[in-house]
Amino acid sequence: MTPLLLEHLDDFAGLARVRIHTDWTDDEDALADRMAGARVAMSTGFRAPASLLARIAPDVRCITFCGTGAVSFIDLEAARRCGITVCNAVHYGDNAVAEHAIALMFELTHRVGELNARTHAGGWPSADIAELGGRTLGLVGFGGIGRRVARLARGLGMRLLVWDRRPDGAALAELGATRAERMEDVFAGADVVSLHLALNDGTRGIIGPRHLDLIRPGGMLVNTARAELIAPGAMLERLRRGDILAAVDVTDPEPLPDDDPLRALPNLVITPHVAWRSDRALRALVEQNVRSATAFLRGKRYQVIV
Amino acid sequence: MTPLLLEHLDDFAGLARVRIHTDWTDDEDALADRMAGARVAMSTGFRAPASLLARIAPDVRCITFCGTGAVSFIDLEAARRCGITVCNAVHYGDNAVAEHAIALMFELTHRVGELNARTHAGGWPSADIAELGGRTLGLVGFGGIGRRVARLARGLGMRLLVWDRRPDGAALAELGATRAERMEDVFAGADVVSLHLALNDGTRGIIGPRHLDLIRPGGMLVNTARAELIAPGAMLERLRRGDILAAVDVTDPEPLPDDDPLRALPNLVITPHVAWRSDRALRALVEQNVRSATAFLRGKRYQVIV
Repeated sequence: MTPLLLEHLDDFAGLARVRIHTDWTDDEDALADRMAGARVAMSTGFRAPASLLARIAPDVRCITFCGTGAVSFIDLEAARRCGITVCNAVHYGDNAVAEHAIALMFELTHRVGELNARTHAGGWPSADIAELGGRTLGLVGFGGIGRRVARLARGLGMRLLVWDRRPDGAALAELGATRAERMEDVFAGADVVSLHLALNDGTRGIIGPRHLDLIRPGGMLVNTARAELIAPGAMLERLRRGDILAAVDVTDPEPLPDDDPLRALPNLVITPHVAWRSDRALRALVEQNVRSATAFLRGKRYQVIV
Repeated sequence: MTPLLLEHLDDFAGLARVRIHTDWTDDEDALADRMAGARVAMSTGFRAPASLLARIAPDVRCITFCGTGAVSFIDLEAARRCGITVCNAVHYGDNAVAEHAIALMFELTHRVGELNARTHAGGWPSADIAELGGRTLGLVGFGGIGRRVARLARGLGMRLLVWDRRPDGAALAELGATRAERMEDVFAGADVVSLHLALNDGTRGIIGPRHLDLIRPGGMLVNTARAELIAPGAMLERLRRGDILAAVDVTDPEPLPDDDPLRALPNLVITPHVAWRSDRALRALVEQNVRSATAFLRGKRYQVIV
């Protein structure tokens, strides 16, 4: 991300000198040395436990986190105690992830990657494909990304069936989407089910074998959210029956172990958690972090979570 | 296509008995035997030169052709002389081909097929992707399929730059597309160029090295129309420079010879002319052919081209 950050050096003119470390480290001594004397630290993802925070305060008064889920990397309670402001970034990757969900659906229907590999290997296979247009997309979760997927799918002529704990009625109406009363109705009623719930204590393992059993033969499951939304082992077991297809950008754990049985399934498409890493998303992410840092240096607040 | 045709047997009730041959042949004697005594012949793609047509007339009075380009399979002038009506099918695959063009663009940007292959092979590659949203799609040709691609791309948030010999101004305005004065402007101004011209004497080889040279480094070329629109060898030569990506569903010839150098290019995605073969397109195709046949049997005309 250094090139993207360099484009923003002028934003700091008159506010601060900028020191950039391009070699990544998770070593606490090295991190403390690097941040000594800095007023703001911009993080590309190092872990900041209470011990590190205690060492860098009171020099460091603000940390900007290059993502949404700062809680997984920074001890937010300790930051509060140390008087360190923490800022995150939001929605920068919504369209990238939404497009990736659509791209996964296209691989399951138009089979471009599969047919390209077979053609480069010397074949010229005769193959039927399927259209997305006219099919029903079932969305489990209707937040920023879910709504974006709905909009893109609508543009492709898909019908929309949506379940969310607190669905946004106006957004449903605008997109001509049908509201499902129960999550089960999405699995039973859609041709393609796409998951877009945030992972938390209320959603971990929320999708179990009984949901996956409801997917019709020939149906498709797409997961660009978090693998842990599905009960451990349930997807593997359902896919082994061979009558449905799935495509996921997320696994548990990540990276997937070399001998994980998911890697051997012919009816599962896997991408290695790249959905959010688009050119546009990275640019928006750096922009938000720079805006948070410069706002703090001016005594203002932008995307402050602690 | 037999199962799809069987769904329509009732359409012929009271009009004709239906005889279905499920084993394909291109042998003229066999074809003449099979059509002996038939009033209508529904073709899934056998060649009908003047010699065959003279043998099956005057029994056969109508041939329905399962595609648009009947001229490549049936001697239309001979059919006219023999008093044989010929019907074709149109636009049945427009959305399938348009979706496939979008699917090819997604493979070039989100790299699902490539990353899936690497993940199934045991890796967990770190990779950046690109978004289609916000990029400019250049369309060369704005007929049924080109307009459909424009609509789908618009739904994905792409900007549209369109060249056509006789562009439909109302369709351009409705889609918020910019009209390019010259074909060159599309190659120079778009992030992704997608070809949607019909192949005829006026368009064969219409795209030459000077057009392909205008594609910017990092740019993309998509062809779901006909390989012969591009001057022989020009695409291979341009791709060998390595600074652009391309994805095609069509080659010249088809199937591509095993040792064709296109198969070895790492920056070319190839699918084996499958874009039109969707479930929905095949269904629409059979429906149109059945409608042509039953109309003829009732003394009416549907999709008559000769």
